[in-house]
Amino acid sequence: MPIDIRPVGTVVGGRGDAVDDHWGPVEATIELDGERLGPDATAGLAGFSHLEVVFLFDRVADDEITWGARHPRGRADWPEVGILAQRAKGRPNRIGVSVCELIGVDGLRLRVRGLDAVEGTPVLDVKPYMPAFGPRGPVRQPAWAEELMRDYW
Amino acid sequence: MPIDIRPVGTVVGGRGDAVDDHWGPVEATIELDGERLGPDATAGLAGFSHLEVVFLFDRVADDEITWGARHPRGRADWPEVGILAQRAKGRPNRIGVSVCELIGVDGLRLRVRGLDAVEGTPVLDVKPYMPAFGPRGPVRQPAWAEELMRDYW
Repeated sequence: MPIDIRPVGTVVGGRGDAVDDHWGPVEATIELDGERLGPDATAGLAGFSHLEVVFLFDRVADDEITWGARHPRGRADWPEVGILAQRAKGRPNRIGVSVCELIGVDGLRLRVRGLDAVEGTPVLDVKPYMPAFGPRGPVRQPAWAEELMRDYW
Repeated sequence: MPIDIRPVGTVVGGRGDAVDDHWGPVEATIELDGERLGPDATAGLAGFSHLEVVFLFDRVADDEITWGARHPRGRADWPEVGILAQRAKGRPNRIGVSVCELIGVDGLRLRVRGLDAVEGTPVLDVKPYMPAFGPRGPVRQPAWAEELMRDYW
């Protein structure tokens, strides 16, 4: 079954290169595709403070995809864990999901802060962030994950 | 640019039909594809309490996709908002993203609770949930969204 997925928009501005940390203050614009989306596709979106953005790590080449396990960020002092137990970009299907702040809506142009996707990234979906879609129950994660995220934003 | 996205797994068990509410206690299994993924693709995943699952609303037909605005759940007492300002399944690219509880890992079989995807749903990605990937700063949402989610889990 072929899956017909096409970008609904593109990240414009922000960072040109995928550096590891300090994404928090980075501002960018998601320019949505007005050929396919109607002008009212973002109606009411400004009522939300945050977005969940689904995007494609399109700069990752086929041979950069891990199908088994690896050390996160290549750090030998962190355990070797499966690609589905980390959020690295070199993953099957190259899909990224990230929550960012929505700072402005101008028709099909969304101004965002703290989106960890580089300039030119194809955007596959934009959803409003609803707190009820966060985790239910207490959250647990390994020590390496907490350490990795320390300077991320 | 064609995007090559293929399922990495399938939802087995759980609900057979997409009903609106009370997904919280529903248990299901994500059966990952061992033809493509290595047996160590889930190594270390059990250290996380929750997953973020990216999946395809594959039962949505082309003519059920909204490209502009609609009333969430068809409720005329809620405002008509853009498809990107709601999380309805009839959306461009049909991509769903949901956080659920991970209750067991048996190789490439993941036992989950509270995944709002019906039996047979193609899974496009599985990521560990890390609290740092939640929203930064205070969260705001419109009243209709809070009301809609009241009995969802």
